[in-house]
Amino acid sequence: MLTRIDHIGIACHDLEKTVDFYTSTYGFEVFHTEVNEEQGVREAMLKINETSDGGASYLQLLEPIREDSTVAKWLAKNGEGVHHIAFGTADVDADAAAIKDKGVRVLYDEPRIGSMGSRITFLHPKDCHGVLTELVTSAAEPSADH
Amino acid sequence: MLTRIDHIGIACHDLEKTVDFYTSTYGFEVFHTEVNEEQGVREAMLKINETSDGGASYLQLLEPIREDSTVAKWLAKNGEGVHHIAFGTADVDADAAAIKDKGVRVLYDEPRIGSMGSRITFLHPKDCHGVLTELVTSAAEPSADH
Repeated sequence: MLTRIDHIGIACHDLEKTVDFYTSTYGFEVFHTEVNEEQGVREAMLKINETSDGGASYLQLLEPIREDSTVAKWLAKNGEGVHHIAFGTADVDADAAAIKDKGVRVLYDEPRIGSMGSRITFLHPKDCHGVLTELVTSAAEPSADH
Repeated sequence: MLTRIDHIGIACHDLEKTVDFYTSTYGFEVFHTEVNEEQGVREAMLKINETSDGGASYLQLLEPIREDSTVAKWLAKNGEGVHHIAFGTADVDADAAAIKDKGVRVLYDEPRIGSMGSRITFLHPKDCHGVLTELVTSAAEPSADH
């Protein structure tokens, strides 16, 4: 069951400049930074609010670290902007399986590691009215059984 | 002060089909529907979670009702997808003024009426790393002084 907007993923060319924009313009703070080699990105997570399911909603600022990463290809085509949205769930495996059964393409056979040790998968944007959609079970998910 | 992700605005060609996708695929429920003649859209708000500032986060599904609406033009150029993101604040006037002072273009001289009687304004996407960004003070904002 999807219980929150976990994050909005925003692709950018220069992570430091974009972090500076979000922190100086809005007063948001950087909660976490990391490099995800598998996804080919450097990222900063800005926590915006906590959510009624015990989690939180973030902005995820993403800069590609490789030209062949999906975010690099997306940026080359679209320019900077919203790359994906993510819903939080206590059980990404169960939700991905249920959604796949409804005919939506799930991009990974098994969830992979996302921000802050979360387990994530993606749904094909062409099956989601143009929106690249991520499902996330955070490492600290209150009721996660993984 | 921006205290929550208020909503993610998603542009679509057919509101009923898109609502059906989000409700049947994810189990989300329609919280509110309305027509905003000024913005030139029909919309459905799906509440995803409540937020730590006393508000909530929604998906806002938008279908244009006029060919000359900004959403219609955006759809013609981009196809279906994420059209804008919105941050909630108790005082959209004060935040818009402070952000304008930092050199970001604010699209309205005065906030206009958005979903569910909220007061809204938009920031120019070219000043926000490609992201059309809305500021929202909801009609029920707990600490709003408007």
